[in-house]
Parts: sequence; C-alpha cells; structure tokens
Amino acid sequence: MKITAVRVTPIAISDPPLLNASGVHEPYALRSIIEIETDNGLLGLGETYGDKPVLDALLRVKDSLRGLSPFDLNGLWQRVVSSSLGTTASVSSIELDLAPGSREDKKELKIFAAFEVPFLDLQARSLGIPVHELLGGAVRRSVPFSAYLFFKYSSDVDPSYRRDSWGEALSDEQVVAQARTMIERYGFGSIKLKAGALDPEHEVACLKALKRAFPNHPLRIDPNANWSLQTAIRMAEHLQGVLEYYEDPTPDLEGMAALHRATGLPLATNMVVTDLAEFRRNVTLGAVQIILSDHHYWGGLRATQTLAAMCETFDFGLSMHSNSHLGISLMAMTHIAAAVPNLTYACDTHYPWQNDEVLKGGKVPIENGCVTVTDAPGLGLELDYDALATLHERYLTCGITQRNDVAQMRKLHPEWTLQRPRY
Amino acid sequence: MKITAVRVTPIAISDPPLLNASGVHEPYALRSIIEIETDNGLLGLGETYGDKPVLDALLRVKDSLRGLSPFDLNGLWQRVVSSSLGTTASVSSIELDLAPGSREDKKELKIFAAFEVPFLDLQARSLGIPVHELLGGAVRRSVPFSAYLFFKYSSDVDPSYRRDSWGEALSDEQVVAQARTMIERYGFGSIKLKAGALDPEHEVACLKALKRAFPNHPLRIDPNANWSLQTAIRMAEHLQGVLEYYEDPTPDLEGMAALHRATGLPLATNMVVTDLAEFRRNVTLGAVQIILSDHHYWGGLRATQTLAAMCETFDFGLSMHSNSHLGISLMAMTHIAAAVPNLTYACDTHYPWQNDEVLKGGKVPIENGCVTVTDAPGLGLELDYDALATLHERYLTCGITQRNDVAQMRKLHPEWTLQRPRY
Repeated sequence: MKITAVRVTPIAISDPPLLNASGVHEPYALRSIIEIETDNGLLGLGETYGDKPVLDALLRVKDSLRGLSPFDLNGLWQRVVSSSLGTTASVSSIELDLAPGSREDKKELKIFAAFEVPFLDLQARSLGIPVHELLGGAVRRSVPFSAYLFFKYSSDVDPSYRRDSWGEALSDEQVVAQARTMIERYGFGSIKLKAGALDPEHEVACLKALKRAFPNHPLRIDPNANWSLQTAIRMAEHLQGVLEYYEDPTPDLEGMAALHRATGLPLATNMVVTDLAEFRRNVTLGAVQIILSDHHYWGGLRATQTLAAMCETFDFGLSMHSNSHLGISLMAMTHIAAAVPNLTYACDTHYPWQNDEVLKGGKVPIENGCVTVTDAPGLGLELDYDALATLHERYLTCGITQRNDVAQMRKLHPEWTLQRPRY
Repeated sequence: MKITAVRVTPIAISDPPLLNASGVHEPYALRSIIEIETDNGLLGLGETYGDKPVLDALLRVKDSLRGLSPFDLNGLWQRVVSSSLGTTASVSSIELDLAPGSREDKKELKIFAAFEVPFLDLQARSLGIPVHELLGGAVRRSVPFSAYLFFKYSSDVDPSYRRDSWGEALSDEQVVAQARTMIERYGFGSIKLKAGALDPEHEVACLKALKRAFPNHPLRIDPNANWSLQTAIRMAEHLQGVLEYYEDPTPDLEGMAALHRATGLPLATNMVVTDLAEFRRNVTLGAVQIILSDHHYWGGLRATQTLAAMCETFDFGLSMHSNSHLGISLMAMTHIAAAVPNLTYACDTHYPWQNDEVLKGGKVPIENGCVTVTDAPGLGLELDYDALATLHERYLTCGITQRNDVAQMRKLHPEWTLQRPRY
C-alpha cells in the first residue's frame, strides 16, 4: 500500500461569540481537512488547525508523502522534518495563547500529527478494522465528554455571527441555563466552565451556581492562565471542595507549582505541559497532576498512547483538550480515548458549539455524554464533498486566515487590549 | 482475523559453561516457543523464557486467547491479568538474580510480552508487511550488536556440556582470543565483558587487555551487581577513559546513584530499572544514564517503543539486554531496534553462544556486527518443526525445569555458595 495523492482543504466553520482570555471567538474557526489516497483504492481522513502557518506547512509537506507506505510513520517524521528546515514562518502570540500547541517549536509535531491520523485510518482500513482496534483494542466503547460551558454574547452582537438559540451567557442564571440545555441535549455527566474572561469573583460565583444546580456533576474551571498567582490562590479559597480539578488558572509551570503547594488543589493543564520536555520539568516541579492531552499537537494517536503510559508511570491523571473542531477530530479523539486504559477524566470537546460538518450523515451523535466507537473500518467516517466544498468556499471568502480573538473583541469593544494575566 | 489455536512448546537449547555472578550456565537453557494460528490461515511466532513459573503461566493463559483478534492488545492484557489472579507461584531467587524481569511482580508483563510478539507478527503478516514497518518503519535496516564476552570453562569441564571450540577463557590472553574469534566471525564493532565472576582486579585487567587489543572498539563491563559499592568505586578508578558504559556494577538504584555521584561514569542497567516504577525512581535519583531494554520483560515491542520515548524525554541512552535465546527473540529485538530512532548503543545478544535453532534456514546471520531486517511479512521467520521436536524432546529429558546456575557450579565446586555482592 503506497500513497498516491494527498489533499489538504482549508475550511471555515461557523463559531459562536464565545468569550475567552484573549477576547471573543471570531464568526469562523479555521480547520484543515486532509485526505490521503493509496494505490489500493483506500482513502484516509484527518482534520487539524487551519490557521495559515499550519496550512502552509501542511501544503509544503503533502506532496513528499507520495510513494510512502501509510505504515511508515518514521518516514513521515523524516519528511516533516526535512520540509521544515530553514522555514521561519512565525505563529502569532494570539494563536500561541489560545493553543499552546501552535508554538513554532512544536510545529513539526503538529504537522506530523495531522498526517499520522489519516495514516492510521489507512492502516486500519487496509485491515478492515477500526482505528481503536489498531491502537490495541477498545477498553471502553463509549467515551465520556464533559459539558463545555462558555461565557458568551448573544449571536446578534454582530451580524457576521450565525444566529444561534443559545443566547447570551454572562450572568450566573444564564450560565446555569446554558448548562441545563447542554446536559438535556447531550447527557453530559460533568461540566467545565471556560473562565478567564470576566471578573474572577463573578466567574467563581457562576461556578458555585452550577454546583448548586448540578450537585452531582463534577465541575472544572479553566481561566486559561489569565489569573495571576495571587488571584488563583485567592479564588482557590472559594473553590475548595467544589472542583474536580483546577485547569490552568495561572501561567507557567513555576506558577502552577506554587499554586499547588499553596492550595493542595489538583491542577490540570493543556498549557504548561504540552510536550515531553515540559512533561519532564513537571516531574521535577510537581506542578500539575492531570495532563490534558491533545493529539493535534502532541504528535498524533500513537504519541498520545506514549503520553498515557508516561502519565501512568508518574501517577498523573489524563484527560483530553479540545479546540473548535468537526467530527474527524472528534472521532480521532474518541478512538484513542477508547483504547487508552488510564483515561481518568471525561474529555473536553467544543463540538456542541459547531453547527457545520463535513461528514456524510452529518453531526456525530453525543448521547449520555458519550461518543461511541463502532467496528466500521478506520475512523469509520466518509466525507460529504458538497459540505466540504461549501465550507472551503466559505474559507476563501470569510477573510480570516489566522485566528485573532483580540481583534474580534476590538470590533465590539475598541478599547480592548490583550493583557496576560488580566486578573 | 481471530485466533483459533495457541501452542506453547518448551525447549532446551545447549548452552556453554559461561561464568556469571551466580555460578555457571547449565548445559541447557530453557525457552518457550509460541505459535498462534488464526482463522485466515496465518501463523504468528514468539519466543520467551522456558523456566517453570513462566511456562506454567503461558499454559494457563493460552487457551483464553482463542477468539481474540491479534490486534486486541488490551484484550490480551485483560486475559493475562485475569488468568494470574490468585496464583502464587514463586520465582526462585536465582532466576531473579540473573533475570530481574523474572521477578514475580513483573510476571504479567512477561506473559503479555510473550504473546504480544506473535500478535504483532500476525498483525504484520495479515498486512503483508514486516514487523518493523508495522512499528513505524525502519530507521535502520541493519541493527548493531556487540560482542558479548564471557569468562568460560572449557566444555570438557563436565560431560553434559556440548563440546565447543571456544575453549577456556579465564586469563586475559584467553579473553582477548575469545574477542578476536568473535569479531572475526561476526564483525562486531563493540565489546561487552560479562564480569562479576572472578576477582575484580583480574576482570579489570582483562578489560584493559581488550582495550590494548581493540583500541577502537567501545568497551563495556557488566559485573551483574556483584561488586559492592566500595569495590565498584575502586574499580572505576582503573576504568576512567576505558569504558563506553559501566553496566550494573553494584546493586540497587541507591548504590548506582552513589556510584555515579562518586565517579561520573555513565552507568547502564538491566537490573535496577526494569519497569516504569523503577524508571520513575531513577528520574528522581539520577542513578543510571543508559537503559538496557528487554522486550521480554518490559511488556513487548510496543512497550519498548514507549520506553524509548521516555528515554528520549529524560535524556537517557538506550540499548538492549539479552538472555540465552534463539532466532525468534533475536529477530523480535532486531525489528523493534530497527524502528526505534533513539537506539544509542549496539545491543547485547547471547546468540553467538547458541548452536541450536528452530528456524527454517538455521541460524540468523550476523554480519559486520549487525542483524538485518528484510521486507518479508511479519518477523519473516518460519519454524523447522523437526528441530522444534528435537529440542522439545531434549526439554523433556534434560532434567532441568528452572535455571539454577548456583547448583550447576556446586557440581563442579561443591563449596560454592551464592553471595551477593560477592566482591
């Protein structure tokens, strides 16, 4: 089995005005859809970031994969490394803040991961088995995800947003209503609140309102490193006994280590342990106890298995981080999550916030808070080429080539500036 | 693809009177040959320890694998764990000393590994690709091994040994002659001396004679934890500038940590870092810088890939340990070594000391110090069933069911006792 063609199609998917530490989500999030064809008539699928630095790198690598076996992951790595020699495309600090995997020094792993998933899809399809079986077999068929709540503007805040029925979520009542809707629709058994957007006291009050409304749902808060160490310690006093874990409240491994020493709260991260070197430093510092993996920047599904084994070795909990994404990313997460024995927490996903899809059959179902793997070969997915063409056309016309939530917030609030940490 | 039958055949292979920390190799070493058949007509091969505790566990697990897919490694693990519940078969301290992977608390990983290799062989065969490709692709087609020298009695020391042409190796001249023969026959580019058998000053003198005779060959000495910390530090003074690495001179992670602090010499181990918990302690203690992996007790080829990634993370060197073995074990080592990018040292193998073989075509060639992988499907091996039957018959008649190098030495020297460390 040899690769005969690789296609990379950038798309723009509609995204609601969700608030975060940098500003507000733009009306469109960018993704790249990857298709790899082989000489035995198979097609492997992948999905990753669509921002310009990543897209440029994907396009630079893709033709060098022709002739390679989809089993040759070391060959893929060599081609990714060769193609990136001498390139100096930089990633903006905005993207860096929101997706630490976007840092320039991790780009090779991101590009590798983008192709590794369709490679594994092809490996599994050539065997007629699902990816979870290729990865060692499902230890769970249903993978739990958490309700991912956001502070949010109403979609009519700006005409460029797609109209949605979620409405505004700024007060505690509105946040509880958002949780109720999301749990009624999808059956989530745990709740994550994206914070770092509003006044910390108010955010904590909202979390406590969630605790009262959903006393049996484990709760997490994620201020996206937007709280100073002092603020994070101060908020921790209100959060003792309320949290399942405290996700990235404050910047830097050193800050997280000081916070853990000061509060004893279990800390989770997708921002300060994002590669093996940081993992190693975390072992030394004892800063973070739960790693939120993300195959898109850790180097793919096999690398996620390695990370899982390392978490087991060092007694770290394991869950998964998410960005705005469609179903290919969701199912890749679900297949690896199904095959990792020590997945100790429900995973994150933005998926309920997305209305678009490029898959035949439309949106992947989330039921009882879980996404379920089947025995269909590979990732079990097929593209809807009409939908893909529509979303690609939108990419070409939407005017966004690189995520910038700060600029988007300035359109609504011209005085807005990026400050980290803000509180 | 489902498993229809599993056969485990214990065999006895002739072994020369090689000296080690416990005593002397017995005339026969025990191995288990594993065959797994699938409903699509494929056969996967494996080889592991043949001592009674391992053999009993293999036999207890094997029938539970029927109906399983060879891709379902998590299912294999579950069956191994289930079958070992409530068993209390103990492993003798002799086996423990010589093969730390034989410790009771690691038995599940050993049994898993024994079946994982034929599972991977079947995965690769079902795809028509070699195991190294299944594991991510060969980054080297030829895997370097080192000349593995032993202090040795002449084979006529006892009539039960098979006659060999190696002769005695007790003096420095004899050890140099052994090295010369081995390098002439196989082209090895580095040399390991198994020590801990004779007086340490004499062993170091032999190593220095090797250095004079082979000034460009990297040298290692392995006293098998048979030197006290004091002796190991004293010998280190003579070894500065001579060694590629200093392998397991003294017992315990703490002892190795103290030795490294005292001498600065790079330390290697297959005795004090033999699982992930010990790996973790080694990170804390900074005891050992080079891990000698062994898929037979680390949990198979995929687990070896994980270990390799962890070595890269923590800046540890990586090589491979060996026991007396035949070609299936050798080729399993070679396939994973071919696919691991950060294999930083030539691997160990006892293979030149073995005359028997169960493979069609006889012994696996070692040329220019290397074993080479091909593109034949799976491990690329076929059994010679006549040879297998002969060696199984020998197992049934040889009278050994569990390795005991102390008892063997007592036959030659009745006053011999086990002391650790002896020097």
